[in-house]
Amino acid sequence: MVKKNRRIVVIGGGTGSSVVLKGLKRYNVDIATIVPMTDSGGSTGKLREQFGVLATGEIRQRLIALSGEDEISKLLAKLLDYRFEKGELAGHNFGNIFLVALTELLGSEKKAIEVASKILKIKGRIIPSTFDNVELVAEYSDGRKVVGEHFIDEPEKDGKIIKLYTEPEAKANVEAIKAIKNSDLIVIGPGDLYTSILANFVVKGISEAVVKSKAKKVYICNLMTSFGETIGMNVQDHINEIEKYIGEKVLDYVIVNSGKIPEYAIVAGRKEPVKIFIDEKTKKRIKVIAKNLLSKKIYVKPRADVLERSMILHDPKKLGKILYSLK
Amino acid sequence: MVKKNRRIVVIGGGTGSSVVLKGLKRYNVDIATIVPMTDSGGSTGKLREQFGVLATGEIRQRLIALSGEDEISKLLAKLLDYRFEKGELAGHNFGNIFLVALTELLGSEKKAIEVASKILKIKGRIIPSTFDNVELVAEYSDGRKVVGEHFIDEPEKDGKIIKLYTEPEAKANVEAIKAIKNSDLIVIGPGDLYTSILANFVVKGISEAVVKSKAKKVYICNLMTSFGETIGMNVQDHINEIEKYIGEKVLDYVIVNSGKIPEYAIVAGRKEPVKIFIDEKTKKRIKVIAKNLLSKKIYVKPRADVLERSMILHDPKKLGKILYSLK
Repeated sequence: MVKKNRRIVVIGGGTGSSVVLKGLKRYNVDIATIVPMTDSGGSTGKLREQFGVLATGEIRQRLIALSGEDEISKLLAKLLDYRFEKGELAGHNFGNIFLVALTELLGSEKKAIEVASKILKIKGRIIPSTFDNVELVAEYSDGRKVVGEHFIDEPEKDGKIIKLYTEPEAKANVEAIKAIKNSDLIVIGPGDLYTSILANFVVKGISEAVVKSKAKKVYICNLMTSFGETIGMNVQDHINEIEKYIGEKVLDYVIVNSGKIPEYAIVAGRKEPVKIFIDEKTKKRIKVIAKNLLSKKIYVKPRADVLERSMILHDPKKLGKILYSLK
Repeated sequence: MVKKNRRIVVIGGGTGSSVVLKGLKRYNVDIATIVPMTDSGGSTGKLREQFGVLATGEIRQRLIALSGEDEISKLLAKLLDYRFEKGELAGHNFGNIFLVALTELLGSEKKAIEVASKILKIKGRIIPSTFDNVELVAEYSDGRKVVGEHFIDEPEKDGKIIKLYTEPEAKANVEAIKAIKNSDLIVIGPGDLYTSILANFVVKGISEAVVKSKAKKVYICNLMTSFGETIGMNVQDHINEIEKYIGEKVLDYVIVNSGKIPEYAIVAGRKEPVKIFIDEKTKKRIKVIAKNLLSKKIYVKPRADVLERSMILHDPKKLGKILYSLK
């Protein structure tokens, strides 16, 4: 059993990290979540261009996931997620606008996150992997180079990413390094392999801190592959890619879904279940936890959301229970 | 002395009402403020057009004036007043966007105001004079008819308004009628005579409720006349105009400033001190309280604010003290 108030660091981004955080906040643990700051799509992308702020969307989603359980915090969480459908604000999440206003008022994103965390009475801390304003860059096996998270996340054609980095180089937020060093458990994923997870590890200092940390390291593998990032990749391929960017074979656990993915969620060549193949050598050093992790909730995309979002999710309670029980 | 928890209703709009509320919230009294919903300028006007919401600006200003004294409420009040200076949000107050999002999320402006009041831990209640979406209309002595609060408040030329009304007719919010009926003291003004004060009284039911109410009625006269509304009008003219729209001679007190208006605040023909002339007959029925009421703070217009706002204000503490001491 994880002892009370063990320090858990969740590294990732997007809906996947939110699911993990929702699962963990039910337990008496110290939570820190490290999020990528390279988002460049949709509402976040527009605000980034206009205000020079970083990934408000990532911060917003984490605030919502960790928000307090009192009536006002619950309502504020809903409000942050509200997306305008009309007028000149159409397509913007209220939460993104909220974070931009706080940043402009307080003069820094760091302070804005701190204050927003207080306002929403969140359980835990939200820590950007970097405060440098950089672009995510992917190089593909066919020679293409794509600049900008959004174009990697929602690409025109499929491809194998052979190199991921930021331009210019990003330096890690010292708070992220500290949290990783002082943690007892590091949870990686689930989430888009390159744009949500590895986007953190390409920030200079993050991988090194993970390698040095004495924390147990667990990787929660995605349910599905995704077009442009992981088509054709099995669990082993995911593990290999993560450890390649971390620089060492550090994982202690991998959590995979053994539940049957419903047919409606599968789109051949775009979204397919990740095959549970792990080679014998890897099984000797990484403990595999295979369970039905599927949520019964079906995710419905809000009308005004211009991004394609995943339809099938992990169940927060199931993940939380497993993570809390890790030795 | 006003007894503890006496019920005070403040009727007005704009900066003037905020000053009164800031002054009153320091005392142990029940505050309700009735605000006009006819604003059509600036950020509010745009949002009104796009979302069909009423005067978010008025609600925002009242939320700020009555906000709680804890650290987070103070910061939220500042945030609500923050005006974007860049990008597609330029010119909008964050508070207006906040109120629009709450209204869209909760489905009604009434609920949005209630929840916003809780979030900002306000002392008192904010009550729109009406929930009908109407336009303010002014007819001038030269035959002109101007439709829309903004065009009356910031007119192209000066003129004497001989008739003010809404199109179509607006019915009073029942909560406003209740608050007026159950009050011990009704405070009218200060504020733009037609666009902030009388805009409430032209709503069907408000004047009747004031006449019927057993509350003492006090009018706080403006410091300055304003172009297009009150140029050339003295205190008596203001009283006459207010009682004309209320329909009866109901005022018990009038509070006027006897302090010297500094020269820098005076613009001949546009902003001049209101002359303290009150006729003998009026003095017999209305008690005149004349004091130096000037604030030492000089109001500086935010850069991104497109509206012309008054430069010299009443002092909240001085007004609060007088109002609290009224017998």
